[in-house]
Amino acid sequence: MFQNSRTLLSVFSSFPQRATSCSLRSISSQRYRRWYSIHADSASTAKLEIEPDKVSVQKTTTPKELIPSEELVFGRTFTDHMLSLEWTASEGWLPPRITPYQNLSLDPATCVFHYAFTAFEGMKAYKDTSGNIRLFRPEKNMARLNKSAARIALPNFDGESLIKLIGEFCKLEERFIPSSRGYSLYLRPTLIGTQRTLGVGPPGSALLYLIASPVGPYYPTGFKAVSLEATDYAVRAWPGGVGDKKLGANYAPCIVPQMQAASRGFHQNLWLFGEEEYVTEVGTMNLFAAIKNKETGQKELLTAPLDGTILEGVTRDSVLALARQRLEPEGWKVVERKYTMKELADATDEGRMIEVFGAGTAAVVSPVRKISWKGRLVECGLPEGEEAGELTMRMKNWIEGIQYGDEEHEWR
Amino acid sequence: MFQNSRTLLSVFSSFPQRATSCSLRSISSQRYRRWYSIHADSASTAKLEIEPDKVSVQKTTTPKELIPSEELVFGRTFTDHMLSLEWTASEGWLPPRITPYQNLSLDPATCVFHYAFTAFEGMKAYKDTSGNIRLFRPEKNMARLNKSAARIALPNFDGESLIKLIGEFCKLEERFIPSSRGYSLYLRPTLIGTQRTLGVGPPGSALLYLIASPVGPYYPTGFKAVSLEATDYAVRAWPGGVGDKKLGANYAPCIVPQMQAASRGFHQNLWLFGEEEYVTEVGTMNLFAAIKNKETGQKELLTAPLDGTILEGVTRDSVLALARQRLEPEGWKVVERKYTMKELADATDEGRMIEVFGAGTAAVVSPVRKISWKGRLVECGLPEGEEAGELTMRMKNWIEGIQYGDEEHEWR
Repeated sequence: MFQNSRTLLSVFSSFPQRATSCSLRSISSQRYRRWYSIHADSASTAKLEIEPDKVSVQKTTTPKELIPSEELVFGRTFTDHMLSLEWTASEGWLPPRITPYQNLSLDPATCVFHYAFTAFEGMKAYKDTSGNIRLFRPEKNMARLNKSAARIALPNFDGESLIKLIGEFCKLEERFIPSSRGYSLYLRPTLIGTQRTLGVGPPGSALLYLIASPVGPYYPTGFKAVSLEATDYAVRAWPGGVGDKKLGANYAPCIVPQMQAASRGFHQNLWLFGEEEYVTEVGTMNLFAAIKNKETGQKELLTAPLDGTILEGVTRDSVLALARQRLEPEGWKVVERKYTMKELADATDEGRMIEVFGAGTAAVVSPVRKISWKGRLVECGLPEGEEAGELTMRMKNWIEGIQYGDEEHEWR
Repeated sequence: MFQNSRTLLSVFSSFPQRATSCSLRSISSQRYRRWYSIHADSASTAKLEIEPDKVSVQKTTTPKELIPSEELVFGRTFTDHMLSLEWTASEGWLPPRITPYQNLSLDPATCVFHYAFTAFEGMKAYKDTSGNIRLFRPEKNMARLNKSAARIALPNFDGESLIKLIGEFCKLEERFIPSSRGYSLYLRPTLIGTQRTLGVGPPGSALLYLIASPVGPYYPTGFKAVSLEATDYAVRAWPGGVGDKKLGANYAPCIVPQMQAASRGFHQNLWLFGEEEYVTEVGTMNLFAAIKNKETGQKELLTAPLDGTILEGVTRDSVLALARQRLEPEGWKVVERKYTMKELADATDEGRMIEVFGAGTAAVVSPVRKISWKGRLVECGLPEGEEAGELTMRMKNWIEGIQYGDEEHEWR
C-alpha cells in the first residue's frame, strides 16, 4: 500500500489558505441570479494546450493475458497501459505519457483524498466489421469533462488533442478490443487534484489519466428489463448543486440508497425531486418515457430537461436527436420537460403507458419493467414475458449500428 | 508519480456490479418518510473491532527538522509518522500500523479516485502548561466519522480504540506540538474506499489513516474579523443530501463560489438556503448571531438547527453547551432555530445586532465584521477598529482554557 518515495509534484497554490486581509471591491457589480447550476469558468482558461506530438510511449514488458470475452466484468480488468498528463498551475499541461498500467503514488495529504477533487468520463471504443477502431462522439465527452472540471476548480484542456491521444492509446491496446458485436473497450478518463496540502482551495496541480477496461454486452443474453425504486427520502441533485456534472462527489452519496433499493428487490433508484415528485434520472442513466398524451392521444417521448439537476448524457443527446430525426416523421412528438411520477402512474392507470427506458454509455438503452412508488408498482408497458419495448429495441439498433459502423454517420 | 508495484489489496465486493435478476419482495414494508438526511447504518456493523494492542510501530530513520513556529502554515507540513489501518469486507480491521509518513500507492481504478469515497475529521492535540498532551472531545470526532462513513457505505469502527491509537501516535510525535498558547497539532483522520473496480457499489476494502500537521494560532496577531458573502446562486447542501456529514463530496463543489467571493473581497461564503434565504453555515464553520429579540428585547444567541443540512460541529456543540451553562444565568437565551438573512439585516437596521461569529476547529471562534447580501453590506455590530465582540472573546477564552487545561473540564 505504501512506498517511501516523496517525489510528488509540490506546486502549492497561491490561493489564501486562511483568512487574510482582502479589500472590499466592486460590490455594486455583484449580480444575484437564481441559477440552477453555476457557470464556472475554467480554473485556468489560459493553459488549455496539450501537446499530443510530445507523447512518450513506454511499452509494457509483461503483457497481460487476454481474458475470455464471456468472463469480462465491467471495470474489473484493465489493459496493459495507461495514458497520463500532469498539470501544474505554473506550467500548464506537461507532455503526455503512455506507460505500463501502474499504481499512482500520492502523498496522503493529496487533496483528492480529502476534498473529492475528481471528475471523470465514461466512453467506449468499438471495433467495426473491417477491424477499424471507432469512438462514439468523443468531443461530447471532452466538452463535458471540461465543464465538470471547471465546476470544481480543476484545469481545462484542449479536447481535440486529448481525442488524438486517446486514439493513439486505443491503437496500442487494440488486442484488448473484442471484435464481436456488443463488445467494446470502456475508456475512463479521470481528472484528479493532486495538491498535497489540507488548506481548502483550488488545486495547484492535477493529474489527468485514462485507463481502459474491455467489456462485454450489458445484456449478454438479450435485454433484461429492470425494476426501479422511486426515491424521495434521499436526494441526488438540487438547484445550485453539481448534479449535472460528472463528479465523483455525485456517486458515493448514492450507494446506500442503492443498497436499500436492492434489499427490497430493485435494481436502481429513480431519483425524484421536490414535493411535486419530478422524475429526474437514475444516477447511472437518463430516463425516457413513451406515453400517449392525456388530452390529445399524441404519442410522446418524454425526458427531463437539462435544468442543472440532470446529467447531460451523451446517449441521452443521441436518443433525442435520433428520435427527432426518425420518430417525429412517424408521428411521435419528442418532449424535454419536467414531468412527475404521478403523470407516469396516471398513464399506466389510464392505458396510455407505452414504454420506459434508461439511456447511458454502459447499456446504451435499458428497458424498465416497473417502478415502485408509494407502496405500489407502476407497470411500464411491458407485457409479461417480454423484456423490451419496440422503441427501446429500435433505438438500441440505431445507436449500435452507428457505433459499430454498420451505418456511416457523423457521430462515429 | 508512479510505481510499478501492484500489491494493493484486491478484495472485490460481492455487490452486483450490473443489472442482475432480483426478486421483488417486501414492497409493503417500504416506508416513505421525508427525512432531511437518511439514516444510514454502517456498511459493516459486525466488524467494528480495532485492536490497538496489536499496533506495529516502525519509526522513521530520517526525522524531519522542526519548522520555526512562526512559519507554520495550516496543513502544509506534516510530522514524521502516520497511523493507518486497512479494512476488508471479509476480514474487518487489520492490525494498526504506525509507519514513517509516506505516499499511498493505489491502483488508478481505486474507487476513491472515481466516486469520492472519502470521509474525514479535523481535531487537535494541545500541550498544556505541565507538558501533557490533551485531546479535545475526541469521542465526538469518532462518532461523526462513523456517521459520515456509514452514509457512503464505508466501514465503521470502535471509536475508543482509535482514540487510544491516536493518543499513542501523539506521544510519538510530541516534539512537533509547540507548547506555546495557540499552537497545536492538527490531526486529520481520513477514511477512503480502496476497492479497485469501476463498478458503482459499496467498497469491499478501505483505508483509515491519520496524518498530523503542526499549526499556529489562526489569528497570530490577535483576532481579525472576516467578511462573508451571502451566497444563493450556488447551494452547498439540501434536505436528503449529505451536507451534515464530513465528506469530501461537500468540499470540492464549494471552491469556485469561494474563489468568486474572494474576487469580490470576501473571505468566505455564507450559504443561504431556499426562497426564505435561511442562514445555514459557512462551509468551514457554523455561524452564531447574537441579537436582541425584535419583540421582547431579550438577548439571544442564535444558530441554525441540525436539520440535516448543517455540519454537526464539535465547536458548535461546545459553544452551545457553554452558552447555556454560563450565558443563560446572565440573562441570555440560547436558541437553535431556522433564521433568515433578512432577520440579521433587520437586526442591524434596527440597532438590535450585537455580534456574529463563526465556530470551527481551525479558528475556534472567528468574528464576523460584515455580510454582503443583495448588493448591500450588513454590519455585524463591530465598532470600527475593533476586531472581535465581547461574546466572541469570552467564548474563545473559555474553550481555549479547557483545551489547554487551564481549567479542568470533562471535555479535555
